[in-house]
Amino acid sequence: MTEEQSASPRRRTTPLQEQICDRLRRLIRDGRMPAGSRAPSLRALATELGVSRGTVVAAYDRLIGEGYLAARGTAGTFVAEPGATGATGATGAAGSPTRRPRIATLPPLDRPRVPAEHAAVSHRLRTSPAGGHASGALPLQLGLPALDAFPRKVWARLSAHHARHSISLMKPDPAGLPRLREALVAYLHRSRGVEATARQVFVVAGYEAGLSLTIQALGLGGDAAVIEDPGYPPVAMVLARWGMTDCPVRVDADGLVTDHLKEAPDNARLAVVTPSHHSPLCMSLSLERRLALLQWANERQAWIVEDDYDGEYRYAGPPLPALKSLDRDDRVLYAGTLSKVLYPGLRLAYLVVPASLVDRFEQVLQPWPSAGCPSLLQEVAADFMERGHFARHIKRMRTLYGVRRSWLEAALAPYAAFGLRHQPQRGGLHLTIGLPDGADDRDCASRAREAGLAVLALSSWCRGRTGLTGLLASFTNIGSPDAAHEYVARLAAAVRPVGAFGPLPMRGSR
Amino acid sequence: MTEEQSASPRRRTTPLQEQICDRLRRLIRDGRMPAGSRAPSLRALATELGVSRGTVVAAYDRLIGEGYLAARGTAGTFVAEPGATGATGATGAAGSPTRRPRIATLPPLDRPRVPAEHAAVSHRLRTSPAGGHASGALPLQLGLPALDAFPRKVWARLSAHHARHSISLMKPDPAGLPRLREALVAYLHRSRGVEATARQVFVVAGYEAGLSLTIQALGLGGDAAVIEDPGYPPVAMVLARWGMTDCPVRVDADGLVTDHLKEAPDNARLAVVTPSHHSPLCMSLSLERRLALLQWANERQAWIVEDDYDGEYRYAGPPLPALKSLDRDDRVLYAGTLSKVLYPGLRLAYLVVPASLVDRFEQVLQPWPSAGCPSLLQEVAADFMERGHFARHIKRMRTLYGVRRSWLEAALAPYAAFGLRHQPQRGGLHLTIGLPDGADDRDCASRAREAGLAVLALSSWCRGRTGLTGLLASFTNIGSPDAAHEYVARLAAAVRPVGAFGPLPMRGSR
Repeated sequence: MTEEQSASPRRRTTPLQEQICDRLRRLIRDGRMPAGSRAPSLRALATELGVSRGTVVAAYDRLIGEGYLAARGTAGTFVAEPGATGATGATGAAGSPTRRPRIATLPPLDRPRVPAEHAAVSHRLRTSPAGGHASGALPLQLGLPALDAFPRKVWARLSAHHARHSISLMKPDPAGLPRLREALVAYLHRSRGVEATARQVFVVAGYEAGLSLTIQALGLGGDAAVIEDPGYPPVAMVLARWGMTDCPVRVDADGLVTDHLKEAPDNARLAVVTPSHHSPLCMSLSLERRLALLQWANERQAWIVEDDYDGEYRYAGPPLPALKSLDRDDRVLYAGTLSKVLYPGLRLAYLVVPASLVDRFEQVLQPWPSAGCPSLLQEVAADFMERGHFARHIKRMRTLYGVRRSWLEAALAPYAAFGLRHQPQRGGLHLTIGLPDGADDRDCASRAREAGLAVLALSSWCRGRTGLTGLLASFTNIGSPDAAHEYVARLAAAVRPVGAFGPLPMRGSR
Repeated sequence: MTEEQSASPRRRTTPLQEQICDRLRRLIRDGRMPAGSRAPSLRALATELGVSRGTVVAAYDRLIGEGYLAARGTAGTFVAEPGATGATGATGAAGSPTRRPRIATLPPLDRPRVPAEHAAVSHRLRTSPAGGHASGALPLQLGLPALDAFPRKVWARLSAHHARHSISLMKPDPAGLPRLREALVAYLHRSRGVEATARQVFVVAGYEAGLSLTIQALGLGGDAAVIEDPGYPPVAMVLARWGMTDCPVRVDADGLVTDHLKEAPDNARLAVVTPSHHSPLCMSLSLERRLALLQWANERQAWIVEDDYDGEYRYAGPPLPALKSLDRDDRVLYAGTLSKVLYPGLRLAYLVVPASLVDRFEQVLQPWPSAGCPSLLQEVAADFMERGHFARHIKRMRTLYGVRRSWLEAALAPYAAFGLRHQPQRGGLHLTIGLPDGADDRDCASRAREAGLAVLALSSWCRGRTGLTGLLASFTNIGSPDAAHEYVARLAAAVRPVGAFGPLPMRGSR
């Protein structure tokens, strides 16, 4: 990133790590941090800037890689002597005017359709300390289960056991480990009402990988797909990557407005939906709409991908059965993930496809040498499920999330009068928080992120003119009522300058 | 697969597992294996058919999934009672005439350009026993390191340690774990003459994943790419998947015939090559051609992907430095993999990109939630490299492969007069074996596979009219000189009916 860019109005959405790198590069180039001088300690800089230590670590790693800084073990990090490392030379050469022009000959990048802030937050997420642990989660960060409540000991015991006794050196079955597929069948039958055989289950390296596989196996490239508006931004990216156009259909309190399906173009052969909990608004698709959606798919001979990313987590009443359980015409492909129930670092998700499509999926997977997730992790996940840890963990998490959700709700309550009001919703792992009238949610989210809160702007998840605004904030990693109050107070302070409301409630007023 | 299809002439390339399933399904439907009767034991059937136990396991698993068979624990596997399981009903329903027509509405599958036999062998590979171990390799199977010589104990110890102490729950950095990237930089510098910073290294889930990432990051969709003819078949599949056309350029004893590069169309902006050991012919690209290729890329502003899949394994003289080490104009992307040096089940490969492209690759990866390989495996691989196990292992394997290669050469020697002659080549993990005049290598490979040998036909790797024929056979997992003789004797017997040569040499004639 050049300095011109970093000084542009888009600066607010520049990842923090980039901003730190820019600032230090400038100080070093200007001679304000001379060669050989010691760089601030990680802790000191993190505190000074109000960012996580991981962000500073990542920035320093980068500057070391670029040759600006040099690590000297326990002595600390120092500004590199010019020419002292090969790295400096290499980067210097690449950045010199004689080499730069080559970049200019590249075609412009396809801009990802994901909002910059989404990328910024996921980038920060990924540059968190290598150890991860619960501390790896940023306050209010979406897409994570409770990292502090994960049964690490059991998981580590099973992992160590398999590492010692059953690491398979061979390439894994591209469709997934039979044991894991069987375990998923049993689980889905019991808890989601999904009937399938193990052959219908395909283990994939994440939800987007499953969606990509689906598009290829069904030969949908060039066709159109119905998506929810608002909806999970990476879906549109995956569709675009495979040459599909998307038709956003709006949602209301009952989920996808299926009346609008008839407006979808003739080549709409796919609908990607989140019936259990809409992403990000968390309502469920009503039974009537479920049936209408299924009927549409059957009439059109279209397919439905049911993204059941967190269907287990419903706090009023038992979880709804999956849409797939109503699917009499075999039009639904059910997509689940272990990221939200276990942990995102596992990189394991799965698809359940209609029996009629199994051959097709196998044909598409077979010749691909790269298909298949590492066996070790699949073995451990299968063990974890077979031994009942999975079901117990979900049960415990449902209780825990109910509690943590109530902490965030309670913390928000005093701010309701000031416009920070969460929307009622029956499930999911985050809250949607309304903003004072006239507040721009992207500005608010950006300010909140500067204050260290990993919230997202609802409008960034919208495609059409839905007029929806608000902030998305996860409660899964809120460790205490105090933490909830602290986060909400920071959020209110960050949002305040753009709102019209009066003095903030004091910490004691709850 | 229907019975009509399985009876077609293509039957010889039907995967063994499918053939077993077909045969059993028929026996069960015809009542020759009545409900409740016991299916043959795995071992007995594997011996009877001359296939690996894993293939039978996979076939049984499939039939169990389809409801034809039922597993009764240690009692064995039995023919299922009609309607006894939900699975039978489900599959039956999906296969019934009222449901079948839906399949007919699907567009025809894009036929993968990989030869069917390639898929067949990789399928058999993947359906090997879950435990894997050395026994998971089929005789002469390509693409595998010596599974029996992998330092399992060290690997298991490191894996168990990380499982207990450092499993990161967070999503991994999409570009790879910094520690692993650093370890790769040090290794590549030392052993392949590649100079890079850690930021230039991107860890990916396999070679094809890296090639896909490259095409996207460089915006090459719709352009053309030079490939080697013959060449590794999945490359053309990946190019086609991203809308690229390929221009096959033939190779001779000095590698890619760079004179033909000028015939590449104007939109050829990529060349995918294997300079260290051509895949599958194992010669090295001469220095003159290396320079010509680099010059072509520089003049055209095209990029070169150097696939260095087994550059470490050269038996005459030290390994050649990578093409990347000659790359003064930063046109080369170096692709390596841990599959051949460690094990394919690890699913870790890497790309080293020019410094000028780092930002682009980071931009493409950042917004993808699915990007990133599991941290645990990256941690273990980094440890293994940092502690010197990696370098020691490669050194040991170079010696071992030299020995195993000589076993296969010695076993082939008596058959030279009958047309089974291996081509001289200086490196790699397999031999190319010539065939008697007039023999069709695909027929020979197919017969050999029926005899349980996982050889591939060279002509399946050819695109144009190269006229090259032969069999590709790996020596990495040949456990003894006797095993080599046994494989070659089986190979000769399998090839014999199509050749014109006389009585086979006796086992004692070596």
